[in-house]
Amino acid sequence: MKIIHTADWHLGKVLNGHSFLEDQQYIVDQLIEVLIKEKPDLLVIAGDIYDTTYPNKYVIRLMENTIAKINLDLRIPIVMINGNHDGKERLRYGASWFQHNQLYIATELDQCLTPYIFDDVALYTMPFFTVSEAREFLNEPIETYEQAVKKLIARIQPHLDQNKTNILVGHFTLNGAPKSDSEREITVGTIEAVSPQFLNDFDAVMLGHIHHPFATPFKHIVYSGSILQYSFSEAGQAKGIRIFDVQPHEIKQSFVPLKPKHELEVVEARFDDLMNGEFERKSNESYFHFIVEQLSHVKDPMQKLKQIYPNTLSLTQQVQTSQYKSKALKDVKKMHPIDIVEKFYSEMTTEKLSELQKENVVALLEKIKGEE
Amino acid sequence: MKIIHTADWHLGKVLNGHSFLEDQQYIVDQLIEVLIKEKPDLLVIAGDIYDTTYPNKYVIRLMENTIAKINLDLRIPIVMINGNHDGKERLRYGASWFQHNQLYIATELDQCLTPYIFDDVALYTMPFFTVSEAREFLNEPIETYEQAVKKLIARIQPHLDQNKTNILVGHFTLNGAPKSDSEREITVGTIEAVSPQFLNDFDAVMLGHIHHPFATPFKHIVYSGSILQYSFSEAGQAKGIRIFDVQPHEIKQSFVPLKPKHELEVVEARFDDLMNGEFERKSNESYFHFIVEQLSHVKDPMQKLKQIYPNTLSLTQQVQTSQYKSKALKDVKKMHPIDIVEKFYSEMTTEKLSELQKENVVALLEKIKGEE
Repeated sequence: MKIIHTADWHLGKVLNGHSFLEDQQYIVDQLIEVLIKEKPDLLVIAGDIYDTTYPNKYVIRLMENTIAKINLDLRIPIVMINGNHDGKERLRYGASWFQHNQLYIATELDQCLTPYIFDDVALYTMPFFTVSEAREFLNEPIETYEQAVKKLIARIQPHLDQNKTNILVGHFTLNGAPKSDSEREITVGTIEAVSPQFLNDFDAVMLGHIHHPFATPFKHIVYSGSILQYSFSEAGQAKGIRIFDVQPHEIKQSFVPLKPKHELEVVEARFDDLMNGEFERKSNESYFHFIVEQLSHVKDPMQKLKQIYPNTLSLTQQVQTSQYKSKALKDVKKMHPIDIVEKFYSEMTTEKLSELQKENVVALLEKIKGEE
Repeated sequence: MKIIHTADWHLGKVLNGHSFLEDQQYIVDQLIEVLIKEKPDLLVIAGDIYDTTYPNKYVIRLMENTIAKINLDLRIPIVMINGNHDGKERLRYGASWFQHNQLYIATELDQCLTPYIFDDVALYTMPFFTVSEAREFLNEPIETYEQAVKKLIARIQPHLDQNKTNILVGHFTLNGAPKSDSEREITVGTIEAVSPQFLNDFDAVMLGHIHHPFATPFKHIVYSGSILQYSFSEAGQAKGIRIFDVQPHEIKQSFVPLKPKHELEVVEARFDDLMNGEFERKSNESYFHFIVEQLSHVKDPMQKLKQIYPNTLSLTQQVQTSQYKSKALKDVKKMHPIDIVEKFYSEMTTEKLSELQKENVVALLEKIKGEE
């Protein structure tokens, strides 16, 4: 059985004010070409199909048209779970009808225990969930994401049929996986990474969330990676899909790269060299982040650069303060929301959040996440 | 062939801050009971399923669950068009899959020309459209809604098969139909009403938009009316659905009332009589609009009334200024948006809008309507 594994489409993604919609149309068209060539028995999409809970109508149309081509025109079954960026309600709307055409959308924890059966393969789904959702579903005092995943797998374990190839589709952070700037933290105020040891019951694990396609050292526990470079920390990273060849006693897996319309490039150079084209780059059409040594003497540098490199998305100056600011902003992006609130509170009041205040903020943040 | 005709569900409707969601759940459950009893061959929903372009997730869930019960559980085919309140994109999402289960959602003018065929019945759809959409589709200089409908029907006319019963499903205002306060104007700055004479090519016309179930004097050109009373101008109005019995040479049609959880009631009385229960009403649980003669001597009258009549939604005082204000507000609600802008402009500047300004405002209003 041939399964194609993809994730993290992030349809509707905007970076520095630039919409990736055209690039996304281009890359899903390429993905469809791969599907036509490879004729898989199943497509797995491991979450973060959308970038936001409330995508606009053009984004929804891109999603619907793409899925319709794959599922209705090419007649390829699809199993899809929500990631932390997807709105569950948005994603699962229509699912009761879709399943009649083998388009399966799993967004609820109680769907964990019932696998989708395709010949000799039993496919279990673990959509993105919040710790409080897991606590409610399991009715146990869960504190961390790892605990939740461990307990959920313990619930799945008795259902596993050793005569089948058991595959898990999930959307979470594996311990040790390298992060980029475009993955939003999954949990609020708790440790979110899951140790790979808890996944040993499965013959293969197809993951979403981490954008790097080679984020794990394992052969059968893998992220497909995102379909495009979505932050400058992903510049130079290969993007693509994975093809699984599942035989009764052997699973082979390979990465198939996709070629984007535009790559992301980070370039450090002197402004004059940029203007004269004296620097290494893949294409003038790339999405550029230029880091320039001295800018203060240049009037409207961004405008000048855009005339030559129309897809310039970011321009920073390599000076002490700029570096500091950029680092501080980067730090904030990597912090847990609760830590941001704590830091802000203590900077504003010179006092620390009390335990009660902290609990209230955590509850509020979880509530917001739950409502998305 | 038995067809049940409904329209104007307005799921997500809020009146004076009160959500009708519970009442809507109650009434669609009752509608489902009617469907179970009547076993129709088809359900027609003539637009305004939702009240807003961006309904919240509870509203979407109510819609999805209701339609799933009717279409997937009861296996009743459904033909649905968008009304002026629906977001087209929202409504039609998933339609390519839904049609495999005979759930047909028509939102585009080019779908007008291809009828849905059920045995001897050919069902043509005319979803809500803007005059500029009609202009673009027809490629003719359309100025009014009536012109658009007339031209569209002229395009449909050659397709009509005289050996079939030809039915039109539409969402527009018929000339002479009585309006209530809860129908939003369909057009911007043009005459929107359509003369019934243009509909003579059809054996029956099932309409949405007007909330009154007996809004036309015709036997086969009818509004089903809304499923609930949605404004105090609809107080006392029967609400329900229509059952069509379509035979090759005869169409019979009857109205079947639904019983809401709460009715809307307008009560004029002295405050003391209200407090003592000395006035006629259907139930203490009704949604009340109280019009009281003298209120100035009463402290927190609304709070006092709500203690006895918990569903009091509106309280007005019957004095000169109050009447004037209420009338002015009512007038505004009945005005075309362009007239509101014109009136506001002239009151603020003591000048009138120039023709150019007016054209720009109309274009802007149409653009807004088109983007919804």
